[in-house]
Amino acid sequence: MHDAMSRLGYVRRRAPRGSTARRTDQIVAAVICEQTPRLFSEPFYARLLSAAEEVFAAHGVPLVVMTATPATAAIAAPPLVAGAVDGVLLVGARARHPLAVTLAASGIPVRSAGRPPDGVDLPFVDMDNRDGGRQAAEHLLLGNRRVIATIAGPPTLPAARDRLDGFRETLRDAGITDMPVAYGDFTHASGAHAMQWLLQRAPRLDAVFAASDVMAAGAMQALRRAGRKVPDDVAVIGFDDAPIARHTTPALTTVRQPVEELAALAARMLLMALAEDEIPKGNPVLPTELVVREST
Amino acid sequence: MHDAMSRLGYVRRRAPRGSTARRTDQIVAAVICEQTPRLFSEPFYARLLSAAEEVFAAHGVPLVVMTATPATAAIAAPPLVAGAVDGVLLVGARARHPLAVTLAASGIPVRSAGRPPDGVDLPFVDMDNRDGGRQAAEHLLLGNRRVIATIAGPPTLPAARDRLDGFRETLRDAGITDMPVAYGDFTHASGAHAMQWLLQRAPRLDAVFAASDVMAAGAMQALRRAGRKVPDDVAVIGFDDAPIARHTTPALTTVRQPVEELAALAARMLLMALAEDEIPKGNPVLPTELVVREST
Repeated sequence: MHDAMSRLGYVRRRAPRGSTARRTDQIVAAVICEQTPRLFSEPFYARLLSAAEEVFAAHGVPLVVMTATPATAAIAAPPLVAGAVDGVLLVGARARHPLAVTLAASGIPVRSAGRPPDGVDLPFVDMDNRDGGRQAAEHLLLGNRRVIATIAGPPTLPAARDRLDGFRETLRDAGITDMPVAYGDFTHASGAHAMQWLLQRAPRLDAVFAASDVMAAGAMQALRRAGRKVPDDVAVIGFDDAPIARHTTPALTTVRQPVEELAALAARMLLMALAEDEIPKGNPVLPTELVVREST
Repeated sequence: MHDAMSRLGYVRRRAPRGSTARRTDQIVAAVICEQTPRLFSEPFYARLLSAAEEVFAAHGVPLVVMTATPATAAIAAPPLVAGAVDGVLLVGARARHPLAVTLAASGIPVRSAGRPPDGVDLPFVDMDNRDGGRQAAEHLLLGNRRVIATIAGPPTLPAARDRLDGFRETLRDAGITDMPVAYGDFTHASGAHAMQWLLQRAPRLDAVFAASDVMAAGAMQALRRAGRKVPDDVAVIGFDDAPIARHTTPALTTVRQPVEELAALAARMLLMALAEDEIPKGNPVLPTELVVREST
C-alpha cells in the first residue's frame, strides 16, 4: 500500500465524462478568500455560510464551499471560470486578490458578500462598517474616554479599512488626531499581541476599539495580564456581536453586524442573477448597530 | 429593493454556458453528510477537511465542500452525478443515506472517509474504531472499574457502532453483560444529557466511555453537577483526541483516531482513481491508540 502511495504519479487529464455529460441543475459556490483552517476557526464564516445555504436550499440550489488564498487562486479559478458552477458568492477578498480580479472579468454571475476591494468591479451587499466605526467612537467619547487606541483588521480588507476610517474620522472631528493603531488578523492571539504593543506605545490609554470580537477578547486577556481593569481602567469595544461577546468577562460592548441578513440578501441577489430576473440596481448596505454591555 | 426581493420568482433553467463550456481542470468535492452548522461546530470536520485539502492542493486539484442531509440529498445529488465534479470524498454517511446510495450507483470516483453504511458498496479508508472501543474497555477493566456505562454515537453511523461493539464485546468477555448505553449525537449537550440519564439508570456507575471527546466533556460537566469526582468516583474516557481533550479539567483520557492521516490517505486514493493509476486493492484501516491522561 505504502509503496503504491509513494509511486502516486498523479497525472492531470480530462475526466472521461468531460465532453458528454450535461448538467441539468444549477449549483453555486461560496468562495472564501481565506485558508481552510480559518474557515473553521473564525465564527463569521459559519454564520455567513449557514445563512446563505438556507436560502439556496430553499430554492433547490446546492451550495459548495471553496477556500482560495492568493497562493491557491490559480488552482481555484479555472474550474469556476470554465463553468463548474453557475454562480459565485465571493467572501472576504482583499486588495489585488487574483481570484476576485479573475471572477470580475469572467462574466459569470458573482455577488460579493462585503464590498470588494478597490478596482474589482463586482456587485455586492455590504454592511455599514464605516458607520459602525463611527458609533464605536461616539460611544467612547460620550463615556469621556480620551486616550483611545484601536486594533484594526488587515488594511487590505475593505471591511477592516472602513471600520478604521469611520472610527478615526469621528475621533478627528472631536479633536483627537494621534490615535495609535495596531493591526491584527482577526485571531485571538493577534488581539492580545496588538494590545500588548499598544500598552507599550500608549501606557495611559483608557479605551480600545477592536475590529472584531475575537480580537477584543484577546485584548481583554492582555489587559488583565497587565493589571488593567475593564472597564474601569480601559474601556473595550469589539465588532461583530459574535456569540463570544456575551461570554467574555465582563460581557463585551460591540457593534453588531448583521451577518446572517447580509448572507441571505447576497444569496437572494445571486439567485436573481441566475434566474435572469429583473435585478435591482445598486449595492445594498445594511446598517450596523451598537450593543452596549459591560466592557465600556 | 424589498419589493423586488419578494417578487423573486426563481425559475430553474439551464445556465447559458451549459452546453458550450468545457472543463480542462479537475475538481473534487468533499460531501459531508451533516447539517451545515454542524460542519463548523464539530471539530472533526475541520481537521479532516484541512488535511484533505492540503493533499489535493499539492496536486493542483481544487476542493469544494458540500453538506448533504438525507433531506437535502435530492438537491445535492444531481450536479454531482451529472459531472459537476470529477470525484467525491464522502464523509459521515449513515445507514440508508440516499446520497451514499446514489453515489455508489453512479460510477463516478468516490472514496469514503470512514466505512460506509452496510449495503453501500464504496471503496473506503477507515480507522479501527472497534479496536479503539476494545482499548477503552481494557483500560477501564485494568483500573478495576466494574459498573461501566457508555455514551454511544448515533447507531446508524458505522464508526459509532464499531466503537460500541468493540467496547461491549470486551466487557462481555470479562463477564460484564449488562452495560447501560445512552445515545448522543456527538454534541456537548447530548453528552451531558446522556450522562444525567445514565446516573439515574445506574447510580453506582464508576466509569463511562463516550464515543467522542466533546460528549465526554459534556459528561464530565454533568458528573460535576451531580457531585461526582472524576476520576475518583467515576472514570471518564473519550474518543478522538481532539484539542478539547487536553483542556478539560481533569485532562481527558481518550482514544486517538488519526483523522488527518485518514483524510490524507482517502484524498490520495481518490487522486489515484482520478488519474486512473494502478489502484491498490482493499480498504485500508488505520490503527487507533489509547492516550492516558488524568480522567481515568
